[in-house]
Amino acid sequence: MRNTFGNFITLTLAGESHGGAVVAVIDGLPAGLAVDTGYVAGKLALRRPSGQISTPRRETDDFRIVSGVYEGRTCGTPLTFVIPNSDTRSSDYAALAGIPRPSHADYTAHVKYGGFEDPRGGGHFSGRVTAGIVAAGAVAEYALAETGVKIATHILSAGGVSDRAFGEFPSAEVMDRVAGLSFPVADPDAGEKMKEAIAAAKESGDSVGGILETAVTGLPAGLGEPWFDSCESMIAHAVFSVPAVKGIEFGAGFSAASMRGSEANDPFRYENGRVVTTSNRSGGIAGGITNGMPLVFRCAVKPTPSIALPQRSVDLKSGENTEISVGGRHDPCIVHRAAHVVTACCALALLDLYAGFRATKPAER
Amino acid sequence: MRNTFGNFITLTLAGESHGGAVVAVIDGLPAGLAVDTGYVAGKLALRRPSGQISTPRRETDDFRIVSGVYEGRTCGTPLTFVIPNSDTRSSDYAALAGIPRPSHADYTAHVKYGGFEDPRGGGHFSGRVTAGIVAAGAVAEYALAETGVKIATHILSAGGVSDRAFGEFPSAEVMDRVAGLSFPVADPDAGEKMKEAIAAAKESGDSVGGILETAVTGLPAGLGEPWFDSCESMIAHAVFSVPAVKGIEFGAGFSAASMRGSEANDPFRYENGRVVTTSNRSGGIAGGITNGMPLVFRCAVKPTPSIALPQRSVDLKSGENTEISVGGRHDPCIVHRAAHVVTACCALALLDLYAGFRATKPAER
Amino acid sequence: MRNTFGNFITLTLAGESHGGAVVAVIDGLPAGLAVDTGYVAGKLALRRPSGQISTPRRETDDFRIVSGVYEGRTCGTPLTFVIPNSDTRSSDYAALAGIPRPSHADYTAHVKYGGFEDPRGGGHFSGRVTAGIVAAGAVAEYALAETGVKIATHILSAGGVSDRAFGEFPSAEVMDRVAGLSFPVADPDAGEKMKEAIAAAKESGDSVGGILETAVTGLPAGLGEPWFDSCESMIAHAVFSVPAVKGIEFGAGFSAASMRGSEANDPFRYENGRVVTTSNRSGGIAGGITNGMPLVFRCAVKPTPSIALPQRSVDLKSGENTEISVGGRHDPCIVHRAAHVVTACCALALLDLYAGFRATKPAER
Amino acid sequence: MRNTFGNFITLTLAGESHGGAVVAVIDGLPAGLAVDTGYVAGKLALRRPSGQISTPRRETDDFRIVSGVYEGRTCGTPLTFVIPNSDTRSSDYAALAGIPRPSHADYTAHVKYGGFEDPRGGGHFSGRVTAGIVAAGAVAEYALAETGVKIATHILSAGGVSDRAFGEFPSAEVMDRVAGLSFPVADPDAGEKMKEAIAAAKESGDSVGGILETAVTGLPAGLGEPWFDSCESMIAHAVFSVPAVKGIEFGAGFSAASMRGSEANDPFRYENGRVVTTSNRSGGIAGGITNGMPLVFRCAVKPTPSIALPQRSVDLKSGENTEISVGGRHDPCIVHRAAHVVTACCALALLDLYAGFRATKPAER
Repeated sequence: MRNTFGNFITLTLAGESHGGAVVAVIDGLPAGLAVDTGYVAGKLALRRPSGQISTPRRETDDFRIVSGVYEGRTCGTPLTFVIPNSDTRSSDYAALAGIPRPSHADYTAHVKYGGFEDPRGGGHFSGRVTAGIVAAGAVAEYALAETGVKIATHILSAGGVSDRAFGEFPSAEVMDRVAGLSFPVADPDAGEKMKEAIAAAKESGDSVGGILETAVTGLPAGLGEPWFDSCESMIAHAVFSVPAVKGIEFGAGFSAASMRGSEANDPFRYENGRVVTTSNRSGGIAGGITNGMPLVFRCAVKPTPSIALPQRSVDLKSGENTEISVGGRHDPCIVHRAAHVVTACCALALLDLYAGFRATKPAER
Repeated sequence: MRNTFGNFITLTLAGESHGGAVVAVIDGLPAGLAVDTGYVAGKLALRRPSGQISTPRRETDDFRIVSGVYEGRTCGTPLTFVIPNSDTRSSDYAALAGIPRPSHADYTAHVKYGGFEDPRGGGHFSGRVTAGIVAAGAVAEYALAETGVKIATHILSAGGVSDRAFGEFPSAEVMDRVAGLSFPVADPDAGEKMKEAIAAAKESGDSVGGILETAVTGLPAGLGEPWFDSCESMIAHAVFSVPAVKGIEFGAGFSAASMRGSEANDPFRYENGRVVTTSNRSGGIAGGITNGMPLVFRCAVKPTPSIALPQRSVDLKSGENTEISVGGRHDPCIVHRAAHVVTACCALALLDLYAGFRATKPAER
Repeated sequence: MRNTFGNFITLTLAGESHGGAVVAVIDGLPAGLAVDTGYVAGKLALRRPSGQISTPRRETDDFRIVSGVYEGRTCGTPLTFVIPNSDTRSSDYAALAGIPRPSHADYTAHVKYGGFEDPRGGGHFSGRVTAGIVAAGAVAEYALAETGVKIATHILSAGGVSDRAFGEFPSAEVMDRVAGLSFPVADPDAGEKMKEAIAAAKESGDSVGGILETAVTGLPAGLGEPWFDSCESMIAHAVFSVPAVKGIEFGAGFSAASMRGSEANDPFRYENGRVVTTSNRSGGIAGGITNGMPLVFRCAVKPTPSIALPQRSVDLKSGENTEISVGGRHDPCIVHRAAHVVTACCALALLDLYAGFRATKPAER
Repeated sequence: MRNTFGNFITLTLAGESHGGAVVAVIDGLPAGLAVDTGYVAGKLALRRPSGQISTPRRETDDFRIVSGVYEGRTCGTPLTFVIPNSDTRSSDYAALAGIPRPSHADYTAHVKYGGFEDPRGGGHFSGRVTAGIVAAGAVAEYALAETGVKIATHILSAGGVSDRAFGEFPSAEVMDRVAGLSFPVADPDAGEKMKEAIAAAKESGDSVGGILETAVTGLPAGLGEPWFDSCESMIAHAVFSVPAVKGIEFGAGFSAASMRGSEANDPFRYENGRVVTTSNRSGGIAGGITNGMPLVFRCAVKPTPSIALPQRSVDLKSGENTEISVGGRHDPCIVHRAAHVVTACCALALLDLYAGFRATKPAER
């Protein structure tokens, strides 16, 4: 429902780039979950812009939990993060008013909100708002981790450079390693080459996109609902909330389209009394429901639309064609930052599906 | 919410392959919309299995509208389709009980529902249930058509054979043509070759998958909500409800990941006083909101999991490893049938977003 | 959400008085619940019009469960009741078209649906549609009964005659007795006098209303959510769905308004190691959450608006003032029939709250 | 959904009495609505405790709007109020830990949340949290007022003293007058006597309850949805969120139960070309939908459960029976403060129904 995601455990997200604060409210969390503010701060730090390949905007992401936590644990009531905005130099963007940046939300927001939208820094559509998703996702990820679920996202490719893929059965060691990196790659050399490509794009006033790959291990079989709340539906719903994401595929994904059934199917066998599959083309989901194998998906992140190179646009006030060159402080690549947002979206979707699972546990036989 | 999709205009879907009926309830439709039962029947006929490349199961899809329509128009109350099941030969599937078909929902449903699931013909996870989506989607598509919106889906590839792509600015003529075909391709020769590939797969007891491409024209700018109910989120949510879909991408999609911003961005210009973009890498959506350009997406359909070739599986009753060869009447390819389901999902998502748009129209300036 | 009730276990309701069928879809039921069709039929029989004090319309309430049940148990997927309409003599009501019956939904539906509403027999607003609520409620009540929950509703007053109240701690014996009666009263003499008052009203072309009292025992403490989904909010939401209900009060209700705190509060004490209250002014709910004591509420049912006596109305076609005398087959009193609908609403609300409770069970200490 | 109310325009509410802040997020507001912070502050001031008859806790209710408003108008995105808590003397309540106050939420919250609840000052169940409802309700009320809708609530009775009732057709003058009073009564003498009764109760360590009456004028016909989202259902749902409310009735309410149909029905007639009713027993709602007449309802507010008089309770830690005398700073009567919360709940419910109405406007004839 608009800025609320989830059926059982919901995230409501509010805030504009240059407004007072980004706010994230999580409702439906069971009471008694440990909430580790250091863990949340760590996740926010991974998402934060830093170094040469990010916007020079300094976000401190100081957050406050103003409700829902008592003595370090959830108390059963809505948990609210308030993340104040700071270093919001509106003047950077003032010139943009009335001239929409191509492929940004400026124009669509203008039409949708009848000119009443907050145009400063992208308003509600700013990547800044993802801080709220990452904070909430950290709570979800921590709760999942306590039940043995591990989530990791790395940059499978960026600026034309590829990292090693997780594969159908991701290694725990690789997952753990990339999960702690702000620029998450399995192969450090690939990471260096990506950064070079990003720097080169920036140099020429341009930007790059990339592909993220996410893996989740430790999930039980049975999460996801038939038809409209399939595991793929819920994860895709959350991940496509991120404006830069333009595609998602699970398991073999688009390459499954050119396989035959005998190749795309995952055979079953018993392993230590447990049903497993010997391949994982399905990415851990069959019929929209987890099968207990690793959940694997990839998503496409388009290049940052804000670039310094001149682009053709329109002046909505004068009704004339014009040009725009986006100044201000922008990321030449947001793929690495999006990685942490996608992890958060995935954690939120899975935690919600878990709660739905608990709500309707089958009768005892 | 589980078997209900949408926020403002909702579809609730029920039914099992061999149960009494498939049921689809649409709530929130404005009163006074024309409901053309012939149009609905036509859409169901397109989805119906037929010919050599489909299951020999004869579904007649006789449907009844038992509520919500009075004198040929919606009367403001929930519209219910009841589509009775017939030609349900349970014996075909009896052997399957206890031996899950690889990459079908048999195993995951078994775990999720604690053994209480209806195993006959795939139960609730059967493609049969998509008849309800197609019927409801036809109502949505008809309503959208009255406002000038056109939707068409074709098989971009199947069995390794490719059709002509719609391109960034699909032709109305091609869209109209494929929209009327049960095996929708723009290039008849490609279609013939696809059918040959499907027949060859069937011959060898196997199946094929494919990629569908959908285009929507005539949409206003402004549909879609920021963050969690973006246009991409809602369409992906609906489309991933179809168990065979494993990937979706909008506009340039995954290929945008290797573009630079200057290439991926869609420049604006005025054309006859209206703001348009001169390219359409975004697939008609920016910031999760339609921009008035054609909406274009593709989705990956995996090969039908039910194949005659022997596959390794497990016997859940004995706890032994075993083999399975899926007899019964199965489609060697469901891509063409899925095309009509994806169109329906898209229509339902867009109609819902329209209602959300009307619910919160901006104040007059 | 419009014709859908509940957050976790939802009922979607469709149908018009003279349409094809009343349809009720319950989603979110755990798999493996026994569904006793005889039990459902019994509940529908209690609601059915019969004898002198009801409409002579003969409803057979033959129902079919067309999805969601396999081998006598829920299979985890949406359970659908289809209850065909029969004996729908439209001619009885034809004259009403255009002349709204005072205090019925004719006028408000006409305005809301812009004249596209189904006017036959009250359309979607007909008491006929409550058959779907009673069928669904029977499934919920049966499921609750298996956990030890008992629900009973009786006519506290009708036509100016009062029955014995349940009191703060209702007797199991009285509850069991009234739960089996189609005209549920604790005191048979009071019941006879009520029927006489109803017959007298009918004789003079008029109708009567009444008050229903519902009790629920066997509930655990902890059901209900703070603020917006309090136990009172959810039950009231469901019960006010019945158009004739105009008031509801829990525990001491309106009389609590004139008590002092020392009188209205329910003291705690331990009884056999369990926390109980020594009075039950709260009607089993504190802070919107059940406290384990009997849940007691009363609701006001207005007199049937359809009466034979002439009433002033308007002719919406001619724009003239006019008179109306409602012919056709009408109930001079629906209080006893509403009793079974209110029980069903209560069961549905409580089953939903149970599922919410399970979804977010606190962590182990 | 738990701490979120509404289908189309939603309020999400968070906060505990002694936590960091009360937070209210309104989503779905149309862009361009004027947001008058002075108006909001005025509403909060009316709710604020003051004088002899309220808790001496000094709440300043300084609020900040941290999102959703740009240049004094809604910008289409979620509007967030953050209302910091101050003057939270936890020590006052420390003694209560483990000894639940009778008829407060202490015990039920303890069971529901497994002992992880925030016990300070009633935690999430504190009346303090209603500041968020009042702030959000002020935005809704202001938006409704711009379309000509007027809402007023007065104390119909408190401490055994009665005010003049609004009647079936409330006077605009009386409504305007009481709407501006923190202790809203139509008859100042009655107000004085009520305050004396409250003071007397306080003197004896006790508390009083009362009945509130709310009227709404200027509503169009057509708001409210059939069955589950009737106008009564939605208002009752919102109003029962307030823990102290134990009953609600619309129009003639419980007294309609003893009327005959000929008395309870509201005859129609044309007045200046508009359809009106000549009586208003229905309280402006027929079939769950507004009919354009004044909407009138009353609700019962139980006495404040926190009283100084000793009451029997239990010690949940020792498992012994004990006594409790509630010290701290408490309201001997919250009826007048609840009046402003009920107005807010009503405004929120009606604004949501308006949005639903707009979402599904009938087709043009």
